[in-house]
Amino acid sequence: MASRTPLTGLAAHAELQGMARTLRGASIEQLFADDPGRAGEFTLEAAGLQLDYSKHLLDREAQAALVALADEAGLGERIPALLDGADINNTENRPALHSLLRASSGGELADKFEEVVAARARMRDYAERLNRGELQGYSGETITDVVNIGIGGSDLGPRLVTEALRPYHGSVNCHYVANVDPADLQDTLQALDPRSTLFIVCSKSFRTEETLTNSLAARDWMLEAGATEADLALHFLAITTNLEAATDFGIATENCLPMWDWVGGRYSVWSAVGLSCAIAVGWERFEQFLAGAEAMDRHFREAPLGANMPVLLSLLEVWYGNFLGAGNHVVLPYDNSLQRLPDFLQQLTMESNGKRVSEDGQALDYSTGPVLWGSAGTMGQHSFHQLLHQGTLLCPADFILPLTSHTGITGSHRRLVANCLAQSRTLMVGRSREAAREALLARGLPEGEAERLAPHLAMPGNRPSSVITMQALTPATLGALLALYEHRTFCSGQLWGINPFDQWGVELGKEIGAEILGRLSGDVGEGKMDPATERLMGVWEQAQG
Amino acid sequence: MASRTPLTGLAAHAELQGMARTLRGASIEQLFADDPGRAGEFTLEAAGLQLDYSKHLLDREAQAALVALADEAGLGERIPALLDGADINNTENRPALHSLLRASSGGELADKFEEVVAARARMRDYAERLNRGELQGYSGETITDVVNIGIGGSDLGPRLVTEALRPYHGSVNCHYVANVDPADLQDTLQALDPRSTLFIVCSKSFRTEETLTNSLAARDWMLEAGATEADLALHFLAITTNLEAATDFGIATENCLPMWDWVGGRYSVWSAVGLSCAIAVGWERFEQFLAGAEAMDRHFREAPLGANMPVLLSLLEVWYGNFLGAGNHVVLPYDNSLQRLPDFLQQLTMESNGKRVSEDGQALDYSTGPVLWGSAGTMGQHSFHQLLHQGTLLCPADFILPLTSHTGITGSHRRLVANCLAQSRTLMVGRSREAAREALLARGLPEGEAERLAPHLAMPGNRPSSVITMQALTPATLGALLALYEHRTFCSGQLWGINPFDQWGVELGKEIGAEILGRLSGDVGEGKMDPATERLMGVWEQAQG
Repeated sequence: MASRTPLTGLAAHAELQGMARTLRGASIEQLFADDPGRAGEFTLEAAGLQLDYSKHLLDREAQAALVALADEAGLGERIPALLDGADINNTENRPALHSLLRASSGGELADKFEEVVAARARMRDYAERLNRGELQGYSGETITDVVNIGIGGSDLGPRLVTEALRPYHGSVNCHYVANVDPADLQDTLQALDPRSTLFIVCSKSFRTEETLTNSLAARDWMLEAGATEADLALHFLAITTNLEAATDFGIATENCLPMWDWVGGRYSVWSAVGLSCAIAVGWERFEQFLAGAEAMDRHFREAPLGANMPVLLSLLEVWYGNFLGAGNHVVLPYDNSLQRLPDFLQQLTMESNGKRVSEDGQALDYSTGPVLWGSAGTMGQHSFHQLLHQGTLLCPADFILPLTSHTGITGSHRRLVANCLAQSRTLMVGRSREAAREALLARGLPEGEAERLAPHLAMPGNRPSSVITMQALTPATLGALLALYEHRTFCSGQLWGINPFDQWGVELGKEIGAEILGRLSGDVGEGKMDPATERLMGVWEQAQG
Repeated sequence: MASRTPLTGLAAHAELQGMARTLRGASIEQLFADDPGRAGEFTLEAAGLQLDYSKHLLDREAQAALVALADEAGLGERIPALLDGADINNTENRPALHSLLRASSGGELADKFEEVVAARARMRDYAERLNRGELQGYSGETITDVVNIGIGGSDLGPRLVTEALRPYHGSVNCHYVANVDPADLQDTLQALDPRSTLFIVCSKSFRTEETLTNSLAARDWMLEAGATEADLALHFLAITTNLEAATDFGIATENCLPMWDWVGGRYSVWSAVGLSCAIAVGWERFEQFLAGAEAMDRHFREAPLGANMPVLLSLLEVWYGNFLGAGNHVVLPYDNSLQRLPDFLQQLTMESNGKRVSEDGQALDYSTGPVLWGSAGTMGQHSFHQLLHQGTLLCPADFILPLTSHTGITGSHRRLVANCLAQSRTLMVGRSREAAREALLARGLPEGEAERLAPHLAMPGNRPSSVITMQALTPATLGALLALYEHRTFCSGQLWGINPFDQWGVELGKEIGAEILGRLSGDVGEGKMDPATERLMGVWEQAQG
């Protein structure tokens, strides 16, 4: 690809800087008063999701300038390039084709698509046989529990999807182990029976330290329970590209499902990495999950930039990060089953866009990816919302709200909805000092006390948020939601001029980790590292007694 | 208390601004080279915790100036004022005496202490009878499961402590339900038997919307299973100050344990709100948890400001937030059982210090509480660490590391330790472009490709972190750790001149929530709210079909 202009070099950037100076101090309520149409028109619908972005420090002029920025940055060409399999991951010389994993046809990518379809058929076969109770362990017991061993993208995606789709679960229980801390595996295995447990080892390279350590421990657990080496074939599947290492481990080749180098870990839940989800919810539901994402892919390709949901969300991210000074973004799903969504999005966004050089290797002099954090509502209201409402930081928020609940308990769910809409509204409207004083007087406080406390109850308002709604959290809308954030992340990466598909920044830590592990295991190397690390290694050694 | 000088008005503030200009671009490795003693001397030990703060953008001069800032801000007087029960929560005219809840003697606070001791005796009685299997449900079955219903401070603290002390669990299982989303309670009750389940309803006011909604649903579940109204006394305890409301609910007065208005929700795990923890780990362990916190309280009171662990951590927070421009703080416990620690600390720090006016009600023109986030290591290494290493934001980090593991699996735990120390070291040392180029050549890449990729592998380093270690994660060291962060939060609040003990910012959202709930339940009010909220209420109504 041709070298691109940095964000700050685009003509629309200068224009937006001027607008930001005005809008920084704007009243969003006043923006509604000046432009009553924005309530209905600052909205979008795609793939079963509705986005309301009317409560932002944004008017139509700034919105148009942001869309011009997207256009100038070449998003119009980059989006089809991504979806059509161009080598968009330029530092690793490969495409990023997670969208192909959920496609219903291959188009120009027939060869790759054939492999995808073949893998899907094998996933389906495992999922269906497990759900029919046809798979047995070494003693003839039916497999009832599946433990996914993986970390990062081989954990966060499947874990989120399985939890989020709990109302759709069948009879097989899926568990997730990720941490190299042995307590993670130990706590999980405590409740399980080796005779009826199947492990899915997810590691593209089959070399991930945590996953390998946990898989070896799981293998020992199985052998100690009385399984033979030959029996392991009944209890281990692998999702990997490294068949040789998997075979050495004792996993039969026919029990290995493929990964591809054109799928990044954080985009891999749509591949065989999602097998545990397909087992948990059944194949048909998993196909609906893929179809929901594919519907979002179609929207992403076809909708004009100004009416393109991922593009819009990305422009808001850049608007707040690069023009209004936000360093973070908070995601608030008002659905308890989405409580892992912030964890998933942390990896997706921060691993993708936590970069400081352009895709051409030039150091950037502007901010890229923000810290993404959040929790399921209403929990955060009793925790960090105080800071959202009265803190000194700008924290743009995404509220995510299924409009109906699977529980059938409408009263409680109505409270959830009311709280979600109330938080978004409260952030915007705030409360003046005078209104606070009146509220205090109405509670019967004496004049002087009301006067004294009013500034503490006052809230500045004008704090921006989006609301993303859906009829219900189904496999399809969940798929669309994840694809939405994937594409938003891609677009922001393009606007910043970085490559969102590599993660070179995690390599050095692994190297130094191996070095320190050697030292802790007795390798000589006195004084080789910095004095603080040397001292801490000594502290650890002493603690071993 | 006398009105205080804002942070920016302190003499040390100006001095520190000058130092920040130099240290912002400093090399931490060079600071070690210039001052080899810092490895051993930028450390502190208190209450079983060791803090290493040597890997910071800080030299001895700046450290001394920060301590001078603390002194000038009056921390030397504010600390004893807090611990001795002065009305430090000035907007609510009351003390903040969570330290009394873990005290082994009452000193001048004999009256309050007597109540604390009485409540402890009652907690002990419940915990011991449950653990001996002496409490039965309506059909005579032994109580085996306890469900804590609470939200915010009535949930995050007990949930964290129970999870963190899993190796100490006895035979009673403790569960936690917080969210008003009915799925939270439903998912929990699915696996439980009403005949052997006890609910603990935690709500100071007994009016918390989520807690009341869930408690009523739990009550229905019990009645539907065949319990009579009179049987409820066997299945419900309350932790509350509102005996009347608890009685109306059907909870016998003798089943109500007290709360006090001088304990904030987010500081309440040491009170009867911690009853579920005491049940989970047994009374003796709970006392050790209290004693660990008390040891930290003693250190906090007695250590000089420059050798005071909570003060030092707070000064680092202010240093990065107000002098070096950080808007966030990341906490990385390298222990899987502490995975809820960031959630707990989010409430503690962001609800306490997410304020924009001084305790006297003056608007502040500087930053207060940052966003606190994080996750258990090594999980984050496969997720957001990319941004920590190569992103454009300053994210000061706390690594928390128990030096030994309860699991007895030393090999895996050694890997955990190695990873923790490696991440802290990597953040500091980084990797130059030249070193990156050499590493790529060593992998066999051609010259041109190594040259092209080197900037992507290069890491700036100089990213600061603290390391907090402990021999093992025990009830005592966990108590000390939580008390450490409580006091750090207090100190930062004092340096910013705010009241960290109120949370007026969450009130308006509750009021507007009630208003919207009314609208969703059929109250008339067309057009009363902003157009976006009106539209979204309509969308919700349509979705109900």
